[in-house]
Amino acid sequence: MILTVTLNTALDITYRVRSLRPHASHRVSEVAERPGGKGLNVGRVLAALGHDVTVTGFAGGATGDTVRERLAGLPRVRDALVPVAGATRRTIAVVDATTGDTTQLNEPGPQIAPAEWSALLETYERLLESASAVALCGSLPPGVPVGAYAQLVRTARALAVPVLLDTSGEPLRRGVAARPDIVKPNAEELAELTGSHEPLQAARNARRRGAHAVVASLGPRGLLAHTPDGHWRATPPAPARGNPTGAGDSAVAGLLSGLVERMPWPDRLARAVALSAATVAAPTAGDVDLPCYERLLTEVTVTAEAAAA
Amino acid sequence: MILTVTLNTALDITYRVRSLRPHASHRVSEVAERPGGKGLNVGRVLAALGHDVTVTGFAGGATGDTVRERLAGLPRVRDALVPVAGATRRTIAVVDATTGDTTQLNEPGPQIAPAEWSALLETYERLLESASAVALCGSLPPGVPVGAYAQLVRTARALAVPVLLDTSGEPLRRGVAARPDIVKPNAEELAELTGSHEPLQAARNARRRGAHAVVASLGPRGLLAHTPDGHWRATPPAPARGNPTGAGDSAVAGLLSGLVERMPWPDRLARAVALSAATVAAPTAGDVDLPCYERLLTEVTVTAEAAAA
Repeated sequence: MILTVTLNTALDITYRVRSLRPHASHRVSEVAERPGGKGLNVGRVLAALGHDVTVTGFAGGATGDTVRERLAGLPRVRDALVPVAGATRRTIAVVDATTGDTTQLNEPGPQIAPAEWSALLETYERLLESASAVALCGSLPPGVPVGAYAQLVRTARALAVPVLLDTSGEPLRRGVAARPDIVKPNAEELAELTGSHEPLQAARNARRRGAHAVVASLGPRGLLAHTPDGHWRATPPAPARGNPTGAGDSAVAGLLSGLVERMPWPDRLARAVALSAATVAAPTAGDVDLPCYERLLTEVTVTAEAAAA
Repeated sequence: MILTVTLNTALDITYRVRSLRPHASHRVSEVAERPGGKGLNVGRVLAALGHDVTVTGFAGGATGDTVRERLAGLPRVRDALVPVAGATRRTIAVVDATTGDTTQLNEPGPQIAPAEWSALLETYERLLESASAVALCGSLPPGVPVGAYAQLVRTARALAVPVLLDTSGEPLRRGVAARPDIVKPNAEELAELTGSHEPLQAARNARRRGAHAVVASLGPRGLLAHTPDGHWRATPPAPARGNPTGAGDSAVAGLLSGLVERMPWPDRLARAVALSAATVAAPTAGDVDLPCYERLLTEVTVTAEAAAA
């Protein structure tokens, strides 16, 4: 199985309103809810691709119960979330019905006690024994040490389980130094890590900091990969139109499934870009449109870059 | 005990953000939750005044469970909510930390099945047997007949339990025709019911439509009462500054407790205005600042109006 870790799980709520106006009262015409947090999104896409997935991280309170109930309904996804006393956060996406523009409200997440963090570490180590790869995804809730991902990366490497890291800020900086197999920052996260706004240069810098491979997501322009096996750009046929929510998580699922299936890098990147574009095109935020994915897969361009670049 | 009916209960959530900007992403710095819906708010204030209260209405789903858990922590409040298959709605108040301005997002509420409505009617009739008064409060969730309040008013009158109605639109129009003892519209609801924007004229009109007494809330200007015993205006010492959320519900609690305690109308109105102003002044939205209430009670002005007016 593939393991995904989501320390700050969420109940993702989408509201549709006519048009959001500050300081006015709004009637919500449609409400949708689903389990969220990057690692859970990655797990859902991996399961849709036919992989067995185990998800861990923290869940608590009434929102945590709702997240777990919803996970129980997903085939090929096993819930190994660690219970906590605090309540799992909600995220609210308010979508204007007229324009499709989205306003996002994110709760901070529960305070994690030291004993809860220890319980997560134990669960994680036990799950790694049967994992073919692991993805560490998203922000840290309050109370989790800022070096949390560095510790999780080191544990995975000690057990020889390939590990992908997708986070930002200081947790990314420390996690990269622990030498993960892959990091997947977006352009902004990569620039924050390296100080360089030039993606190629920034990717090289991130590898020097410890990442074995860097796959930078450049939004509608696809992916840029810097790996020990070579350097590539993977580009979708046309900039996808739609909602970019979850596109990065779909790319992670593409990279991780490609790794486990021992695909060469260009095929992994093509899959990641096609999944990402199919997520943007899907009618529901964060879903993958699988027929759209299969069509896009034949249309993604992957070009090798000179090793010196 | 005093009975309150909240057909569209809610989990009221308050988010604090720096400043709400449409189509941006916001980190919520503070989250507060509490049981909501007008009848539950009325019940909480009645309990704070020392009355035993029973609350009924509908509750369902994870949000319904949270509402019930919170109610269980309130002294003098008995939970007689009827379980439903759908999920109790959330309301979200997004407060700008810089200005205190509030943006409101209200979910529509669960679809109520005919059998669930029948179960409510049975519970209601049973509870009325030991009720000294009843308040019918707020909007109707989808699936409840538009004449719901008219039916609940008739049942209360048949059992000789004094009934106060606080709703709006067509449910208010039909409810008034069933001859409730008191209706408590705000100026806008009263104008919508009667077609008149002149409160005195509109209150007379509402009585002709069936209400025995009309108490119109005029926001910071206090209350206007048209009753079989006389006509009064009750005015707070100064327009209260703060959050008006729940001020109308506190006024209902004042009117209902005054009725049960057999206070004369001017004393009921003074209590209602003082409670209302103390709610606006309270630091937490919807709470009553009791010492503030007691001080304001001595400062409210109640003046009789000529019967011909």
